[in-house]
Amino acid sequence: MTPERFRQLWDTLLPIGRDPDGDGWLRYGWSEADLACRAWFTAQAKARGLTVETDRNGNLFAWLGDPAAGDAVVTGSHFDSVPHGGAYDGPLGIVSAFLALDLLNERGVTFRRPVGVAAFVEEEGSRFGIACLGSRLLTGALAPERARTLTDPHGVSLAEAMRAAGADPDVIGPDPQRLARIGCFVELHVEQGRGLVHQDAPVGVATAIWPHGRWRIDLVGEGNHAGTTAMADRRDPMLTAAYGVLAANKEARLRGAHATVGRIEVAPNATNAVPASVSAWLDARAADQDTLTALVDAVTQRLTERADRDGTSVTVTAESITPAVNFDPELRDRLVSRLGGVPTLPTGAGHDAGVLAAHVPTAMLFVRNPSGVSHAPAEAASDADCAAGVVALAEVLEELACR
Amino acid sequence: MTPERFRQLWDTLLPIGRDPDGDGWLRYGWSEADLACRAWFTAQAKARGLTVETDRNGNLFAWLGDPAAGDAVVTGSHFDSVPHGGAYDGPLGIVSAFLALDLLNERGVTFRRPVGVAAFVEEEGSRFGIACLGSRLLTGALAPERARTLTDPHGVSLAEAMRAAGADPDVIGPDPQRLARIGCFVELHVEQGRGLVHQDAPVGVATAIWPHGRWRIDLVGEGNHAGTTAMADRRDPMLTAAYGVLAANKEARLRGAHATVGRIEVAPNATNAVPASVSAWLDARAADQDTLTALVDAVTQRLTERADRDGTSVTVTAESITPAVNFDPELRDRLVSRLGGVPTLPTGAGHDAGVLAAHVPTAMLFVRNPSGVSHAPAEAASDADCAAGVVALAEVLEELACR
Repeated sequence: MTPERFRQLWDTLLPIGRDPDGDGWLRYGWSEADLACRAWFTAQAKARGLTVETDRNGNLFAWLGDPAAGDAVVTGSHFDSVPHGGAYDGPLGIVSAFLALDLLNERGVTFRRPVGVAAFVEEEGSRFGIACLGSRLLTGALAPERARTLTDPHGVSLAEAMRAAGADPDVIGPDPQRLARIGCFVELHVEQGRGLVHQDAPVGVATAIWPHGRWRIDLVGEGNHAGTTAMADRRDPMLTAAYGVLAANKEARLRGAHATVGRIEVAPNATNAVPASVSAWLDARAADQDTLTALVDAVTQRLTERADRDGTSVTVTAESITPAVNFDPELRDRLVSRLGGVPTLPTGAGHDAGVLAAHVPTAMLFVRNPSGVSHAPAEAASDADCAAGVVALAEVLEELACR
Repeated sequence: MTPERFRQLWDTLLPIGRDPDGDGWLRYGWSEADLACRAWFTAQAKARGLTVETDRNGNLFAWLGDPAAGDAVVTGSHFDSVPHGGAYDGPLGIVSAFLALDLLNERGVTFRRPVGVAAFVEEEGSRFGIACLGSRLLTGALAPERARTLTDPHGVSLAEAMRAAGADPDVIGPDPQRLARIGCFVELHVEQGRGLVHQDAPVGVATAIWPHGRWRIDLVGEGNHAGTTAMADRRDPMLTAAYGVLAANKEARLRGAHATVGRIEVAPNATNAVPASVSAWLDARAADQDTLTALVDAVTQRLTERADRDGTSVTVTAESITPAVNFDPELRDRLVSRLGGVPTLPTGAGHDAGVLAAHVPTAMLFVRNPSGVSHAPAEAASDADCAAGVVALAEVLEELACR
């Protein structure tokens, strides 16, 4: 697999969903861009003689062999991006899967298990607010009644978006039969930090996904005139929010954890008005659950103290908490061994692989990211490293499906 | 003037533009609600035998006597509100003007100068972004070419909004002849702080409007993945913004000034993304220009230092700066004397009176606001204090127009 050969296929996907101003990619589940990605998937699968299947939740599978035989080896990832996201997060795993099958085909290997390439719906949760939407529905981790009523920022529900895309929202939900056919799942993904840069390796194997969660912080004060209200008479929730942002950062650093306030909504958000309320979202992640709990507790306590001084009220609500995922140790060791002892590393990001790991032996491969940036246009991987990722994935598929 | 009599007229205006959910008032310039307020104005004027005139910028005048005689005594305010604003800011000055004329009529006074009741267009600037739109156009402080192209949040231009309301945007602009007829202007307004509460007085006279301005703070960092980016590898502009919010608050308190960050825009504003950029707007006001300059300089310096630590960049841009307005001292003293020595006080808010003060002797009366809240539904004034305001305004009009 040459870098040029990787680039050739990669370039066919790159224009889809690209921001016209060049500011990254805008690929949201069931959007026009997503439908174009799905069409690309079907075309690539058919060109390789694979059978394309769409499950009841809209997840795509391209099969080599008959999946009904069971114990299938499945690889893949997702097409969708965060707003103005990078090119690699998700699509790299799908492009690499097709290229890895090409390599194995050229080697003339004999497959003893069915092999599938998967593309899961709305992994980022950027449109409907729930990450890993497709894999959560498939595994039953998300109730279909709730999913149907999720709305995007324009008020369009998942059900409406699916109908507009020609899919049937009435049939979404857990699919234990399809899930039972998957013998193991391997997701290749661009690394989202600089762990492999520090270890000077193009490819690594995941050990675990840190426990992580999202907490909504609602701060209520008193809306007022910015020009005439004496400072001492204010109950300004923006002050409490600002203090919370800095406190979360400090508490995370003290624990070697991650805390981010990346989203804020202010009401009325007017230049000349002391805000009536501010909502801020805390994304927190740590190596273990105790550290994560202690981090969120510390931030909540400091917010509460500050709110008392600001005359505001604070409510912290867990919107989602995802426990730690430890990937299957046997599968992990087998991959590391087959790949000649590549580095292993944990990640702070959630993935469809993390959702599937509760049901089938699951592993992840990471490809080096020189910028360490992810969820932004500067997300990167060299063509040479991507080609190395394809080779590693082919090795893994041969190890799992051909022995 | 009994509280009940004030309430009777007040209640006829109250339903117009009220938020259906009870969350304050939504009265924007040239909106349906505004047109209803304007119809109310015309009806009230006609019921009193006043001549209604609409100037080329849409400002309304109801005349007692012939304004062409010149040296008119004009009072009034504005109908429009901020989003979900209070009932009193603006309308109180117009309702009180009609009631004050009623009182003088009952007293059988003889007017020696024409008297006008004015309603200026879009004082809050909530729809088209420029405060005191009508009075600025009238006085030439805002160029008509620029005004016509101002757009509201839905992309509707002032020209389009005026046409939709049956007004002609082609004729807007300075109107020195009409302005020259105004001999003096007195605006009655609800107080927007608790100065009169602290002084235990229902009515006061303004001394000055503090110099004030709006500064846009643009902070640029590096968008990144919230889960996987090590804290040490981040360049997070939200941290710089949060520090700026707290620094502005502290620097304002140290100087007895006002600083508010009431508006923030985050990109991409996603829970799981370290922001790429944050823009925050600083509203700052102080008793004198030197204090205001020192305040903004101190905030800028602290932001710059913090940005250096956060690895972000900071740009501070003045969007508008309004110098101090000192109301006509002679007129002010005459009012205070006539009203038996009521308190005098400055204000941090801009007003049409502040715009007119550059052209004609101008004064303001404030009516006590027990909540001290303004630009929010909790804005308040008791019916008794409002009636006292009407009596005070009648005294002032008699003093100015009948001697």
